Amino acid sequence: MSANNLQIAVLGAGNVGAEVIRLLQQNHSDLAARAGGNLVISKVLVRDLKIKRSAKVEFTNDANSILNDPKIDLVIELMGGIEPARTYIKQALSSGKSVVTANKALLAKHGAELFALADEKNVDLYYEAAVAGAIPILRPLRESLVGDHVTKIMGIVNGTTNYILTKMSETGEDFQSALHRAQELGFAEADPSADIDGKDAAAKAAILAGLAFHTRVTDEDVYCEGIAKISDVDIKVANALGLTIKLLAIAQVNANSKNLNHKSICVRVHPTLISQKHPLASVREAYNAVFVEAESAGQMMFYGKGAGGQPTASAVLGDVVAVARHRFSGGIGPKESDYADFKIEPISESQTRYLIRLNVADKPGVLAAVAQEFNKHQVSIQTVRQYGAGTNAELTIMTHLAKESDLSATVKDLAKLSVVDDVASVIRVEGEI
Amino acid sequence: MSANNLQIAVLGAGNVGAEVIRLLQQNHSDLAARAGGNLVISKVLVRDLKIKRSAKVEFTNDANSILNDPKIDLVIELMGGIEPARTYIKQALSSGKSVVTANKALLAKHGAELFALADEKNVDLYYEAAVAGAIPILRPLRESLVGDHVTKIMGIVNGTTNYILTKMSETGEDFQSALHRAQELGFAEADPSADIDGKDAAAKAAILAGLAFHTRVTDEDVYCEGIAKISDVDIKVANALGLTIKLLAIAQVNANSKNLNHKSICVRVHPTLISQKHPLASVREAYNAVFVEAESAGQMMFYGKGAGGQPTASAVLGDVVAVARHRFSGGIGPKESDYADFKIEPISESQTRYLIRLNVADKPGVLAAVAQEFNKHQVSIQTVRQYGAGTNAELTIMTHLAKESDLSATVKDLAKLSVVDDVASVIRVEGEI
Repeated sequence: MSANNLQIAVLGAGNVGAEVIRLLQQNHSDLAARAGGNLVISKVLVRDLKIKRSAKVEFTNDANSILNDPKIDLVIELMGGIEPARTYIKQALSSGKSVVTANKALLAKHGAELFALADEKNVDLYYEAAVAGAIPILRPLRESLVGDHVTKIMGIVNGTTNYILTKMSETGEDFQSALHRAQELGFAEADPSADIDGKDAAAKAAILAGLAFHTRVTDEDVYCEGIAKISDVDIKVANALGLTIKLLAIAQVNANSKNLNHKSICVRVHPTLISQKHPLASVREAYNAVFVEAESAGQMMFYGKGAGGQPTASAVLGDVVAVARHRFSGGIGPKESDYADFKIEPISESQTRYLIRLNVADKPGVLAAVAQEFNKHQVSIQTVRQYGAGTNAELTIMTHLAKESDLSATVKDLAKLSVVDDVASVIRVEGEI
Repeated sequence: MSANNLQIAVLGAGNVGAEVIRLLQQNHSDLAARAGGNLVISKVLVRDLKIKRSAKVEFTNDANSILNDPKIDLVIELMGGIEPARTYIKQALSSGKSVVTANKALLAKHGAELFALADEKNVDLYYEAAVAGAIPILRPLRESLVGDHVTKIMGIVNGTTNYILTKMSETGEDFQSALHRAQELGFAEADPSADIDGKDAAAKAAILAGLAFHTRVTDEDVYCEGIAKISDVDIKVANALGLTIKLLAIAQVNANSKNLNHKSICVRVHPTLISQKHPLASVREAYNAVFVEAESAGQMMFYGKGAGGQPTASAVLGDVVAVARHRFSGGIGPKESDYADFKIEPISESQTRYLIRLNVADKPGVLAAVAQEFNKHQVSIQTVRQYGAGTNAELTIMTHLAKESDLSATVKDLAKLSVVDDVASVIRVEGEI
């Protein structure tokens, strides 16, 4: 680093990368005043040098010309995917460069080795853009709430699925039609599976849980259910009950444990019924929001744009200025903290409430037979509603808190009952309703 | 500082101070693991040593025994008020101690000298708890959004007034009755004037504006109107129009200026009509929320508890751990940035929309006479509604964007019209409606 110049390389010049480059150049004097020195783009790694690009910077397709360049202080990784991003980041950290990345999949899978390496080399590794785009949520968890005990996080962290569920709820259309509309409008990709299946949200859940609970959590620790099975009938029933369905990334300290030293945590992504009065219920379309509960602070919510070139670039630049301030002042930011020894609770042990819809024969004794199965597995019923009659009768059953393994066993046995035509859906319920 | 021990003194052991002491002791091992060393309470300053207190710490009523003690690394100021807090903080900073404070009034008035002193002495001066209690908003503005341009902030930053306005809106009661209820429930103080008159919110507006726009802003720069004049009829009319009234702290870059280098900012606190669909509209009772718009990040909202011992203590402890991490690692946090040279726009130049209620005689020509006055001062009317008839007729007029000086002149002339009995209210309108 030359005096008061931070030399930056950007890996990837797609949607976000191009915007980061544009803002670094356009806002150069503001950023310099705020950081305490110049932020200079040294090189930009692209796959194809033949594509015409408007930015006036040095493009290269040779990663080593960046990673082996001792003048470069900071590498911004915006390629996505596991490889070669992982190798490039390790090379950068190893040679004493700080790294800013938006790569949630990589961090959720290989965070531990990358944070250990950053720690060893005494450099910054920041990733605010990896979760909930422009919304400042990782720094608040790492720094602002560090004096508190976070007990639960519920986040709408995938814009595609929130857009689809919003459309289904507001227009009554079914999943496939809402998905097609989202694809037409650019809110869903041609292959939307990572979003729809909840894998994208699961990576973010792992990152949020790790920061909130000071514990290492990987994507494989996260239980994950997507939204493809949510039907327009589910949505209609939810609306009728004053509820709404959201795909939530949930991380919580096991509420049953009173022993502070041997707590377990549960991290899961699944369609979730919440009250229409819950702050998360009003988060519409592609917006994201993270709802946080902490012992002293109480309930908080962080709301904003979760994706897109500009919002993501805003989060990246916040991290870039943080690295620059540390470099210019000779310090370093707070390291990743994973001192806490929380066990990951298996999903079978998790306790939630459930809404179950059954198609049943409309004849005497049906409710008794159904109730018997719940009773057998010690799942307590809060309310039962019956809709329709004759061949189309439907039972909607809301349970009290139930253990997942008990609920699964109940559902399996319900499906075998002669009076039950079909278990139409099983959806978890969170918060006060 | 002895190796890996941060020696802390707390000034004030009231509601917040007692909670900070309790949490520092109860969560000692967690805080040590997160901070990288022990947080030790050295002394606590109280006015009256005779009051029995449960905390096992050394109490003193001699400030100098703290401020002159070279072993103390960090002073947490929780006394409130200008003096002696200002003198104590200056003494602490001067002798190389870092300071964490929740004192918004002091920072809004004397922030400049305190930040300059902290800068000179190379110590941290943090104050997350001074605005919006437990909600992480100052650190996100200072760090997460530092690579972006914030263009507007609208905050519900006073819980007392939000509680009163919520009750007026939801129960139909008038201001005095809602205020009495708030006092009975402990949401308003016996002398509620600092809250009701908007002075508390104005101090917070100055702090938010300073951080967001990298400019020094004091409480005297903030235009301030309270909620005492808001009537139950105002609330009823707002509800009928799909609007809600909130006391907002607003800070914005003058939208009319296209010259990035010579912008002005406007900082104001006043009752504000917003759409019931605006995210701020759903912030009820004593909750706080800060809505932020930035060029790249777009719209964001930060929501949570704005006051109370526990939430405020959470914010204080976040700052304490930040200071500790810096002390243990040998660094220092980002300094206050006030490089930007924004002028403060006088309120007379500010542009907003207005809703004006007039009691008028119900006879031909009234509307023409009224419209004429608006026209004379070039205030453009968007809609006019007439309610009632005979002696009780009321005109409700929504304007387009108008300059405050033009609007004031219009209102003055309207009051002189023989057909106008009374200008019942004039309330600003923000956001899309």
